[in-house]
Amino acid sequence: MSELRENFISREWVIIAPERARRPDQYVNHTDRPQPPERRADCPFCPGNEGMTPGETLRFGADRDWQVRSVPNKYPALKADEEKRRSATGLFRAMTGFGVHEVIVEHPRHNAQLALMTEAEVGMVIRAYIERYRAIRRDPRIETIIIFKNHGERAGTSIEHPHSQMIATPIVPPQVRIRLEQAIRYYDAMGNCVFCDTLKEELAAGQRIICQTEHFAAFIPYAALSPFHTWIFPKRHRSCFSEISGVEAADLAGILRRYLKKLSKGLANPDFNFTIRSNPVKEKGNDYFHWYISLVPRVGHTAGFEIGSGMFVNSTLPEVSAAYLRDIDPDGKA
Amino acid sequence: MSELRENFISREWVIIAPERARRPDQYVNHTDRPQPPERRADCPFCPGNEGMTPGETLRFGADRDWQVRSVPNKYPALKADEEKRRSATGLFRAMTGFGVHEVIVEHPRHNAQLALMTEAEVGMVIRAYIERYRAIRRDPRIETIIIFKNHGERAGTSIEHPHSQMIATPIVPPQVRIRLEQAIRYYDAMGNCVFCDTLKEELAAGQRIICQTEHFAAFIPYAALSPFHTWIFPKRHRSCFSEISGVEAADLAGILRRYLKKLSKGLANPDFNFTIRSNPVKEKGNDYFHWYISLVPRVGHTAGFEIGSGMFVNSTLPEVSAAYLRDIDPDGKA
Repeated sequence: MSELRENFISREWVIIAPERARRPDQYVNHTDRPQPPERRADCPFCPGNEGMTPGETLRFGADRDWQVRSVPNKYPALKADEEKRRSATGLFRAMTGFGVHEVIVEHPRHNAQLALMTEAEVGMVIRAYIERYRAIRRDPRIETIIIFKNHGERAGTSIEHPHSQMIATPIVPPQVRIRLEQAIRYYDAMGNCVFCDTLKEELAAGQRIICQTEHFAAFIPYAALSPFHTWIFPKRHRSCFSEISGVEAADLAGILRRYLKKLSKGLANPDFNFTIRSNPVKEKGNDYFHWYISLVPRVGHTAGFEIGSGMFVNSTLPEVSAAYLRDIDPDGKA
Repeated sequence: MSELRENFISREWVIIAPERARRPDQYVNHTDRPQPPERRADCPFCPGNEGMTPGETLRFGADRDWQVRSVPNKYPALKADEEKRRSATGLFRAMTGFGVHEVIVEHPRHNAQLALMTEAEVGMVIRAYIERYRAIRRDPRIETIIIFKNHGERAGTSIEHPHSQMIATPIVPPQVRIRLEQAIRYYDAMGNCVFCDTLKEELAAGQRIICQTEHFAAFIPYAALSPFHTWIFPKRHRSCFSEISGVEAADLAGILRRYLKKLSKGLANPDFNFTIRSNPVKEKGNDYFHWYISLVPRVGHTAGFEIGSGMFVNSTLPEVSAAYLRDIDPDGKA
């Protein structure tokens, strides 16, 4: 029997239609992907090819013995050396393509994967996110910084070498603004953070929790948009991702690696995207907005109904997806 | 050079990044798809198999000699025989899966395509949309009706037989509500319909128009979300799709067939979705909302940035996409 559920954070409705469905193991990835080599001579992100990516903005580790680097995107969506300027002719409103677009090379090894790295290695990637976020937000023309990762072709990447990206925009995107407004309205009505309250209820219900650590919880949201759509929430209220402590960053590395390894084992290395949803950079720390990670394994399709309504149809019960991943031992034998 | 453009109807920003880009002909579909047969014995939508789809809701043509049929979806996202009821436990808000989910079989021939049908045949499909829309809206529990079509696997369908779908929802989806609110605010500020004003400006600019008829214009919007993202606007202001006249419906069939044939010739039968954006059914005809068709050829990917920001990156200038389709003679030799 179908059910509609409301995502109380975005106020979006989703149709949970398990009759159309599919057991979790039917989402296992059967693409036959050849194992990439450890190094490729023509890969701009492989050690020894640093000259192919000029303008390095961060490097952890010495010279050629680096662990993480960040560099400008070679085909940037937005550029830092552009003037920020608006124009309008009638209803045609435009803006110069000012912004920042960087790539974070997560590991020197061409065939590394976040799911298979050590916690310390994942921790360095997170530290790189934090450092670059803090550096980029200093430019007063920047309004929002989106950190994201595309893993696999269905998730929109064709570059094998493990990397994440950051795009800093000169506007607050409406989707970000709407989430912020909903959070403010909830705070005005209830006196609490809607994210804190959601996490409290999810932890009490328990059935959608995948795993947790001292500082974080990974769960399939009650109104998950798609099978295995996952949120990783910090337990401590904080508006901006870049303000987490060193201890929290290390703990985040632990849960992210653990979650990704469960996902990789459970669905045979599926394509996925994740994004870090943080406060717009000029919103100071506040009591209503709470940063988190949203992770979307690309196991389904969006079609005309989603385009027309903005509503998603999820063919698997969130409780079932969560139980499937919860039961996988990330470090046990396959 | 990149540019940000604002979609003044949804107020969403898009990044137009032609440096990452691609000429229009680079989107030509190279999938090697076998031509389907004229009839398949196991296809529930082929003539002779009407018994496989019980509960027919519409039929144009006599008995086995039908031209268009509509039937309930066999795996419905929402069901008409469900009671409409809400429930809430803390922040977990849900609703029974009440609604309507129908399939419109567009043609008896298994390998037919809207792009290759006659105008009269496309006209019958549009008449079927209108009749079913008018019938479904009579149920006072229905708030919104989404008509959509998925063509090809990348657009989310695996059924070859040409068909469209309608899903009627027991709520107004937030995406629909937001467009309505923006339209009302514009009307309050300007005294005009934002869609009428947009069309007027697009017709005056001319460079993004693909084709037009007496009653409709097809164009790539100024802030197109993706290459070949297309809007078909009625020239006469009307809030609800189902209120168009017989003359307008026939004219719509003409421009839709013409546009789809240009698209099919220009990009070698690409996968696409379209949806009809109409007033929520309980909003009476008004001066601010204006129905239209939004069409999205599936030539790109959405990735982490789109998920994180709601903003799209379009690698082709809308003016260039429009010129490419404008120059294709839909009925000339290939």
